[in-house]
This record gives sequence, structure tokens and C-alpha cells, in this order.
Amino acid sequence: MITREQLAERDAGDVLAAVRERFFIPTGIVYLDGNSLGPMPRAVPAHVREIIETQWGEDLITSWNRHDWVNMPLRLGDKLAPLLGAAPGQVAIADSTSVNLFKVLSAALAMRAGRSVVLSEAGNFPTDLYVARGLTAHCDCTLKLTADGEDVAAALDEDTAVLLLTQVDFRSGAMHDIARVSKAAHAVGALVIWDLAHSAGAVPLQLDAWQVDLAIGCGYKYLNGGPGAPAFVYVNQALQARFQPLLQGWFAHARPFDFDPDFHAADGIRRALCGTPPVLSMAALEVGLDTFAGVDMAQVREKSLALSDVFMQVLQQECGDCGMQIISPREPDKRGSQVAVKHPHAYAAMQALIERGVIGDFRSPDIMRFGFGPLYIRFVDVWDAVAALRDVFTAHSYADPKYGVRAKVT
Amino acid sequence: MITREQLAERDAGDVLAAVRERFFIPTGIVYLDGNSLGPMPRAVPAHVREIIETQWGEDLITSWNRHDWVNMPLRLGDKLAPLLGAAPGQVAIADSTSVNLFKVLSAALAMRAGRSVVLSEAGNFPTDLYVARGLTAHCDCTLKLTADGEDVAAALDEDTAVLLLTQVDFRSGAMHDIARVSKAAHAVGALVIWDLAHSAGAVPLQLDAWQVDLAIGCGYKYLNGGPGAPAFVYVNQALQARFQPLLQGWFAHARPFDFDPDFHAADGIRRALCGTPPVLSMAALEVGLDTFAGVDMAQVREKSLALSDVFMQVLQQECGDCGMQIISPREPDKRGSQVAVKHPHAYAAMQALIERGVIGDFRSPDIMRFGFGPLYIRFVDVWDAVAALRDVFTAHSYADPKYGVRAKVT
Repeated sequence: MITREQLAERDAGDVLAAVRERFFIPTGIVYLDGNSLGPMPRAVPAHVREIIETQWGEDLITSWNRHDWVNMPLRLGDKLAPLLGAAPGQVAIADSTSVNLFKVLSAALAMRAGRSVVLSEAGNFPTDLYVARGLTAHCDCTLKLTADGEDVAAALDEDTAVLLLTQVDFRSGAMHDIARVSKAAHAVGALVIWDLAHSAGAVPLQLDAWQVDLAIGCGYKYLNGGPGAPAFVYVNQALQARFQPLLQGWFAHARPFDFDPDFHAADGIRRALCGTPPVLSMAALEVGLDTFAGVDMAQVREKSLALSDVFMQVLQQECGDCGMQIISPREPDKRGSQVAVKHPHAYAAMQALIERGVIGDFRSPDIMRFGFGPLYIRFVDVWDAVAALRDVFTAHSYADPKYGVRAKVT
Repeated sequence: MITREQLAERDAGDVLAAVRERFFIPTGIVYLDGNSLGPMPRAVPAHVREIIETQWGEDLITSWNRHDWVNMPLRLGDKLAPLLGAAPGQVAIADSTSVNLFKVLSAALAMRAGRSVVLSEAGNFPTDLYVARGLTAHCDCTLKLTADGEDVAAALDEDTAVLLLTQVDFRSGAMHDIARVSKAAHAVGALVIWDLAHSAGAVPLQLDAWQVDLAIGCGYKYLNGGPGAPAFVYVNQALQARFQPLLQGWFAHARPFDFDPDFHAADGIRRALCGTPPVLSMAALEVGLDTFAGVDMAQVREKSLALSDVFMQVLQQECGDCGMQIISPREPDKRGSQVAVKHPHAYAAMQALIERGVIGDFRSPDIMRFGFGPLYIRFVDVWDAVAALRDVFTAHSYADPKYGVRAKVT
């Protein structure tokens, strides 16, 4: 039996407990949706205000140089790089995840011009598939998708130009082994693109050591960069000289302020930029990145797994007869930082849960998704979330005959 | 002889004078660079703070619906539409100008698949050329550029798929006649894309009446949306059903939150979206658009031309022996909202001018560019700017033998 008191004790001994103070979490809210939108770091309002009132307001256009706005995309990229296991000069902050995927996929296809297949999974995050469909349709390539449960590595062959995967599944939280799968792709001569939207800031990454070619991901989930925060893009140093995205704008030019009518690509990761960066949104993201100052990603991972493990245990213990089915992997090395639970009335149950101050997410058609941001979620929050869930299922008759009213959580 | 007192009287009678109060202009600064970065509207800090602290901070993920973040791109688009002469449902706010150009150009090329030429001008804004070069190189098309001074309409032929022009030249301020040039392009069966970066908010536009096909432009110049503000994209209603950009992301899906692995394009202008919008930067842009509330664009244009005309007159009167050469058109209907002045020491002179509190812009190799934002620039500002310029040329020996030390402004 796990008790709330025991969990309060775990919080007291949590090495990351103090980091929670860096965030504003509304009173009475248990926020288990930081994997959709990370909560607001307390330092954001003052920092953005400074950028707006002093830099934009007072210093106007001169801020591009005076406050180095022009280098924000690379400066912030280098700030993020350690969380990705990347040496400096390989990460940029720019655009959205979709646009960044378009850049890296178009560049990767050009580097593997003799091959015709982009391999991904049918369950990959839809926007990744939309970007890949749009691009492959235009260059006589094929988007090949493996079915749920199929080993994607087994589907690789000499025709595979690019393997495009999201490390942590947005529904189930199931996690790929980047090192193993990338090695398999490289063995057939394919390039790999990893979408790290549900990884960065939650899962320790070693992109350089794993010899990842290209990666992208978003700034507004575990990186706490604010709604629609600009995304990131990683281009391995070894590929940068050949990196030529189909989408090329002036911020990727070697000398953008020469206003040269001919395009001469900048050296290095700057090639992954395109248009003018949205400075205000980037400013908030910088504060989000700063919430990781002094934080050890191994400790983040340890706490993340402990939180999700405790959640599953307490769910089984307190709510075992509610007809829910856990669909996230139980094995720690196969799980990201979330737990997904199936229930036929998932949508209504999540609405009722939110009314009780526990914010998770619903994913069509029948999934409740609970994300655990290790920087700000406490062990007692896990208890309180399950208690609210039990309350929802007691107060309402959401239990479904299909699962059996008294079915155990499986 | 024009005197400062006369100009003060013009300010007193200016119907737009009160609009200046909507902006924060630092004390002692004459800001003639709003065509690079519009000044900060006074309402921005409070509005962005509300979005950050209340919507993001308190309401967290629920704000996507509760505060309708999800519809910001179209809601703001409809707010901008009247400034463009566009009926609702044809304008979206999204991404950067470069990315939006990529979308509309790729869609336009697909609609004119049998043709092989994108026609533009060698002097077009470089990022437009970079985007066009990247795309045409990939689809066996040719980017054909007319030389400076050549009539672009005369270069149109049956091979022209797309005519891509910026209405107001970023260097000289010379302005195209959109109606005339678009008609010529349509006469040969080509589509037109207009870049309105230096037009929107300064020049009255009638995109619908002029039967413009596609347009793009940026939010941070005369729209006062803040540094790197998201850009806009216009897709004429008549083309929307066939509008299929190569870049397709989840915000362009008919039902993005169904997480459908197949892409089904949304109806209407939503197709011009791609990834998740940067909410904080969009919030500032919304305030920028609100600075036009109740403002008549005909009055904006009238004041804009009066300001630039007075600038040229006072420059000639007070500074005629400084060796400067005005390169902007004198004819009002051929001039945007800026005046460009050539001088061999333009760079150093602009630095010296900025030190004196008059902020203009330098454009390589020898151009000083002065933008006149009619919402906040006063006639006395024009006088003060020229006085500072005279001071610069008196205090320093910037006059160049090439133009003659006592040469008149020409």
C-alpha cells in the first residue's frame, strides 16, 4: 500500500524539489499536461517585459545588434544543446516543428538522391506525416509506414533514404531506442531524423554520441517555452556542409545584411534558419531553457520514471475497479515521461477531472494522457490526481461494460 | 522657404495627430525606421502580460480553447484584411514572410504546372529571391529576373507561371502599380504574388478589387507587431479550393485534433497555416493591428506622401550642399512611404545621425533610408531629422568630391 504520507516524504527527499519554485503553478491545480504546454516559468513576465519595454520600446531597431537579437536563434540553440547531448554549433531555434521538419527532410532527401523511400510509422505524430506526404509526393518518393507494433528497424532496406521517427509516442508514451534504431538505419545507408517533441527536457539525450543525423522538436512542451514557442533543429556537424534545405531564406545567408540577390549559404547550423525570428516568443523560450540551469538530466529521468511508476501503482491500488487500461509501457527504458490510460469515456472523464483541478489531456478516441514534468510535479500531486480520478469514476457512471465495472487496471 | 513653425502648424491640423499617442516613442528620438521595425504600441506590455500571466500562467493548456488561441491566425488575419482591401476569410497570420512565400509560390507553381518561369526583379528583396531560387531549382523551373529600370510587365509571356514582385522597393521606395501589373500578368495567364512588406499599413491596398491572386508580407514594419512578428498571407477566395502548398502541417488540416494520419486540407484560408502559432508574438501583433482602429487608410496615405514630400523639400532647402542624391521617385503615385538618399559616406553619416537621436537605416552600399510612419511621425520630426543631417555634414567632412562638396541635392 502506498500512502499520501509516504509520497510527501519522497517529496521531502527529492533533489529536484526546489526547482518547482521556478514555475508558477496555480493554486489547487495538479498540472499533468506539461507535455502539451509546459507551465509558465516565474521569470518569464519580467524578462519578456524587459525585451518589450526596454529593447523594443526604448532601443527600437538598434536592438538587433545592441541586444544581439540577430544571434538569438543560435545562442538559444547552444543553450539547449546540452539537453540534447549536442556539442555547440549544431542546434538552432527557429520556426515551428513542422517547418523545421520540412527543412531537414528536404535536405536529407537531397543527400540520398538515389533512394526513394521515407520510412516512418503510421502512429507517428500526424504533422510529421503531413510534412513528409507533401514533400515525398513532389519528388517521386514514397512514404512507407509501419503498422502499430511492427519493428520499424526490420522495414529498413537499401531503398530507404530517410528514417523519420518520433522518439516518444504522443499517445502511448512508448519510447524508441535512438542509438539502436539509428544504427540499423545507418547500416543500410539511410539517414535518420528524430522528432524529439516529447523527449527534450524530459529524457536524457546523446545525439552526438548516438550519431544522430538530424533532429527537430518543439519548445513548448518539456522546455517550457510558452504557447507556440519556436521549435528547434539539430544538424550533425558532419552533415552541415552538405545541408541544403529546399526552404532557404535570408537568415540562412552567409551575409544577410549585404542584401545579395544570390543565395550563398552560411556555414554551419545557420543554414537551418529561414526568416526573421519571432523575438518575443524566443525571449520566453529562453527563460524556459533557463529553468534547466544546474539540473542534471539523469536526475530528471530518474524522477520522471519514479513519478510515472508511482502513478501506475497508485492508479491500480486506488482506482483498479474504474475500467481503465494503462497502455504505456511498464518497462522504464521503453517509456517517456507520460502515462496513457484508455477508457471508453475518456473524453468525459477528462473533462470531469479538469473540473476537479487535475489537468491532463485527451487524445482521440479514448485516451487520457498524463504527463509528468519532473521539474515541477510532486509525488503528492500524483496521489491527488489519482484521488480525483477515483472521485470522477465514483461520482459518475463512466465505467463501461466493455471493460467490466470492477475490472482491474491492466 | 519652409520653416519649423509652419510644420508645427501642419501638425496642429493633422487629423492623425492623436494616433501618435498610441505609440511609445522615446524622448528625444525621431524614429524614421518604422519600415524596419515599427515602434512599440503603448498597449503591448499590458496585453502581452495578460496573455502570459493569466492565459498561459493561470489557464494553462485550456487557453487554446478558452482564450481561442487556436483561431488567432485567422482572427488576426480578418483584423488585418481591411488594411489590405480583402474581404474576410482570405488572410491568415503565420510563420515568417519567407515561409509564407514558399507556401504561396509552391501552390502557385502547382496551379500553373505546364509553365516553367517565375518572373521577378533583380532588385526584389533578397529573401524573396532566395525562396524562389530554392524552389525553382527543385522543380525544373527558371527564375527570370528583370534588370533595374526594365519594365517587368514587358517581360511576361506564355511561359510565365508566376509573377513575383514586391510592391514597394526596400531600397528606393519606388512603388509598383499592382492593378496594372497584375492585369498584364493575367493577360498572359500567369498568377501574381505580391510581397507587401513595405506596403501594408502605409499604402492603401485593394487586393480583392485588383484581383490579386496571392500576397504575403511582414508584421513588424508598418503593422507595428514587434520584432520578428509573424507574417501574413493572402489567398484570393477564387484560388482557395486549389491552394495546395508543398509545406503542409497540422494547422492546415480540416480536423487537426483528430490526429488523422492522412492529410485532409481544411477549407479556405486555413490551408495557408502550417505548424503551431507563436502565441506571444501574435499577441503583440494584435495590438499592432489595433493601432489602426478607426484610421482611414486614405488619410494615412495622404499624410505619408506629405511627410516624404516635405522631407525632400526641406532636405533640398537646408542641406542642398551636402552631396546627397535622392533616389526615391518624386511622383507621389510611384513612391511608398520612404525616401532613400545616396551618399558615398552613407554608412558613417547614418551612424552619426543615430548618435544625434535620428534613427534611419543604412542599406548597402551607399543608401540612407528614411521611413515615414504616418501614425506617429510629425511634420516637425521631419524638420528635426534634416537639421540633424545638416549638423552631421557640417560637423564631419562627409561630402565627397564625386558629388561635389557644394552639389545640390538632386
